[in-house]
Amino acid sequence: MKVVILGGDGFCGWPTSLHLSKAGHEVIILDNLSRRNIDNELETDSLTPISSMGVRLAAWKEVSGKEIKFYNLDIAQEYDRLLNLLLDEKPDAIVHFAEQRAAPYSMKSPRHRRYTVDNNINATHNTLCAIAESELDIHLVHLGTMGVYGYGTAGMKIPEGYLDIEVVAENGERIPQQILYPPNPGSVYHMTKTQDQLLFAYYNKNDGVRVTDLHQGIVWGTDTEETKLDERLINRFDYDGDYGTVLNRFLMQAAIGYPLTVHGTGGQTRAFIHIQNTVRCVELALQYPPEKGERVKILNQMTETHRVRDLAKLIASLTNTEVAYVDNPRKEAAENELKVDNSCFLEMGLKPTTLAEGLLHEVTEIAKKYADHADLAKIPCTSVWTKDQKAGVPQLKQEVTSSSNN
Amino acid sequence: MKVVILGGDGFCGWPTSLHLSKAGHEVIILDNLSRRNIDNELETDSLTPISSMGVRLAAWKEVSGKEIKFYNLDIAQEYDRLLNLLLDEKPDAIVHFAEQRAAPYSMKSPRHRRYTVDNNINATHNTLCAIAESELDIHLVHLGTMGVYGYGTAGMKIPEGYLDIEVVAENGERIPQQILYPPNPGSVYHMTKTQDQLLFAYYNKNDGVRVTDLHQGIVWGTDTEETKLDERLINRFDYDGDYGTVLNRFLMQAAIGYPLTVHGTGGQTRAFIHIQNTVRCVELALQYPPEKGERVKILNQMTETHRVRDLAKLIASLTNTEVAYVDNPRKEAAENELKVDNSCFLEMGLKPTTLAEGLLHEVTEIAKKYADHADLAKIPCTSVWTKDQKAGVPQLKQEVTSSSNN
Ligand SMILES: NC(=O)c1ccc[n+]([C@@H]2O[C@H](COP(=O)([O-])OP(=O)(O)OC[C@H]3O[C@@H](n4cnc5c(N)ncnc54)[C@H](O)[C@@H]3O)[C@@H](O)[C@H]2O)c1
Ligand SMILES: NC(=O)c1ccc[n+]([C@@H]2O[C@H](COP(=O)([O-])OP(=O)(O)OC[C@H]3O[C@@H](n4cnc5c(N)ncnc54)[C@H](O)[C@@H]3O)[C@@H](O)[C@H]2O)c1
Repeated sequence: MKVVILGGDGFCGWPTSLHLSKAGHEVIILDNLSRRNIDNELETDSLTPISSMGVRLAAWKEVSGKEIKFYNLDIAQEYDRLLNLLLDEKPDAIVHFAEQRAAPYSMKSPRHRRYTVDNNINATHNTLCAIAESELDIHLVHLGTMGVYGYGTAGMKIPEGYLDIEVVAENGERIPQQILYPPNPGSVYHMTKTQDQLLFAYYNKNDGVRVTDLHQGIVWGTDTEETKLDERLINRFDYDGDYGTVLNRFLMQAAIGYPLTVHGTGGQTRAFIHIQNTVRCVELALQYPPEKGERVKILNQMTETHRVRDLAKLIASLTNTEVAYVDNPRKEAAENELKVDNSCFLEMGLKPTTLAEGLLHEVTEIAKKYADHADLAKIPCTSVWTKDQKAGVPQLKQEVTSSSNN
Repeated sequence: MKVVILGGDGFCGWPTSLHLSKAGHEVIILDNLSRRNIDNELETDSLTPISSMGVRLAAWKEVSGKEIKFYNLDIAQEYDRLLNLLLDEKPDAIVHFAEQRAAPYSMKSPRHRRYTVDNNINATHNTLCAIAESELDIHLVHLGTMGVYGYGTAGMKIPEGYLDIEVVAENGERIPQQILYPPNPGSVYHMTKTQDQLLFAYYNKNDGVRVTDLHQGIVWGTDTEETKLDERLINRFDYDGDYGTVLNRFLMQAAIGYPLTVHGTGGQTRAFIHIQNTVRCVELALQYPPEKGERVKILNQMTETHRVRDLAKLIASLTNTEVAYVDNPRKEAAENELKVDNSCFLEMGLKPTTLAEGLLHEVTEIAKKYADHADLAKIPCTSVWTKDQKAGVPQLKQEVTSSSNN
């Protein structure tokens, strides 16, 4: 299969590109390197020493004998180049990772809010428009987020994209319907993903574009079987307050013996998936595309859920560190339940890697190994969701509690 | 009250500006004149001889003694100018008309699709972002469309924005909820309005922005009490296949004795409102803003519904013309019901102008009066919704039926 990977230089896109190339697919990467430029802006860097795209692709050729093509192209801005590329390459599928994906970054300032909306909506819309205009039957696989559902659902299990409801008619009759799960995004970034859903539904209905939308949990882990083959293939590991996910920040803090900073009570429940499972899920999504004429296929791409404070305690006990509670920069409920239906991927044969198995490897092989490259000042999240919240390094709310007390 | 009107040079924005100015409000118009530029692109023009903004404002000063300020500004592109203007002027409210509003134009080509998404989403997002950044408690009134609901609702009356549903939990329990009405847009233009709704919901929730979203039907009529005061104040009348609404196209065809072209069976039911009622509704919406902390207030701004073929027959009989059925360029159901709840505006005191009262004035005072300015070749809709539909002048599907036969 010939597959174009939008955003193939990023944290999920790079290991996916290698995984699909290894599996025998022809892979073409499109990326404008905006993520590396954002590192420049934020004066931070991947903890792991990632290579330039030129070095990455040469190393992959050396290690695997396989070629991956790369185009430096802005999907949101360079529509004509994108369209011509599709017409020339005639891919079977496109995997779309190319969006600004950090919630805290999307809330940093009006400029960051506006960049996130403009970049993400135009990237997705250009992609759909180019597929329709090309008249090629290209299957689009998009990386969405569990965050479109809004966390907290009255104890209900979150279904895969569509919700069964009953509408009560004027005469009292109950009319059963199935609707796109009502969105409740928690940041400007998450909001763009709910807008993406409307783009997919429309292009699917009007132009017959086949779309799979993967509602992904927080991705953790760094290595996949392919990235481990050579240090020049290493994947990025973000630990800064904007792009570092909660788990990565804990791992870094543990590695350097700093207390794990939990926002609020840590009662927020989040969904997780290991990067090795992410690349496998994308492969499965490509293998089982929706039929022509079928509605947008939505799959929940996550394997386990945890409360943030439990995660902190787990890592604290593994590494003998402490847990500290700080103000929550996000505007969200302090505590929430989260039960998620992920049966589609399990039925397709996904074998989950659990946190319990993989965490120690991350601490020793990644966080501790590269800890001396880290700029510790970058770890706290300084973006705030509204003007009445205080920016700056979070203040500790409680005395640091030793993990041995938990 | 000080009110900024985004898109105040347009068909709805101009008479609204005059109406609010007349009522004693301080009015400031922002418009990038893109609508006039699109007339250049489409090689068409308003049927009525609209004046330039300079002449319009001078005439208004002369006639009413009142001053309206105007800034030529692109809301979607010039964020900093927009923000500074809000900080300088400190308006109480913003009325947002500034979007590309023609469904056929939004479907003309990939360039038109992309322009519509980029312009509309960024215009709305910049406005919300600037309100939040200004930290002023500005009430935003937005012109949305009945089209966000998607026509056809299983015989149910369309509520004002929010739908009561019951979610069936795993244990069989029915949990009542109220959700944003599930969107089902019929064109790229309508889709942008469903994306706007997500922007409003988010900025309302996160930043406390007070928003009223007016889900408007098709606006008909040309004159309002203020535009009638001087010919230099005349409002635009679009009759071309892209911007001319179904009613305006019928009026033009009737005026020149051309058969009224009905798309498909004409079984589509649409919601209508007279321009005099539009300006009144906006005034009422400004008068009854949502409270601080209240969710987005959604009002259905329409006064009557009609099937397209009934409308054609009505105008045909008034003007002694014929009706012709042609292929439908839109991808939509051939026939649909439409019942709409509009009790909010009626309770606020709106007095509807009905088609039955106002149509003849439109035919004689507008369509017939200016008919010799019309380029008849521009009347048919040549935009198509998908590539498999044929572009070009619609082919007559049936023999022309004389209105006297109906
Ligand atoms: N990492 C996670 O935990 C996670 C969780 C859920 C969903 N996702 C989704 O998966 C996708 C990939 O996430 P990631 O963690 O790999 O992010 P990332 O930032 O590491 O990668 C995104 C890549 O897209 C590129 N890009 C962005 N805008 C572009 C544009 N306009 N043109 C071309 N390239 C562009 C960037 O340069 C970057 O290489 C995102 O859409 C994200 O929302 C990620
Ligand atoms: N006319 C109708 O029947 C109807 C029905 C339902 C809803 N609406 C909505 O009402 C609003 C006004 O409709 P209208 O018929 O007056 O349209 P219009 O095209 O006549 O007016 C829109 C005005 O906004 C301006 N504009 C567009 N983009 C802009 C930008 N980026 N910056 C600054 N100005 C910009 C245009 O120049 C134009 O003057 C639209 O949002 C439309 O969707 C109209």
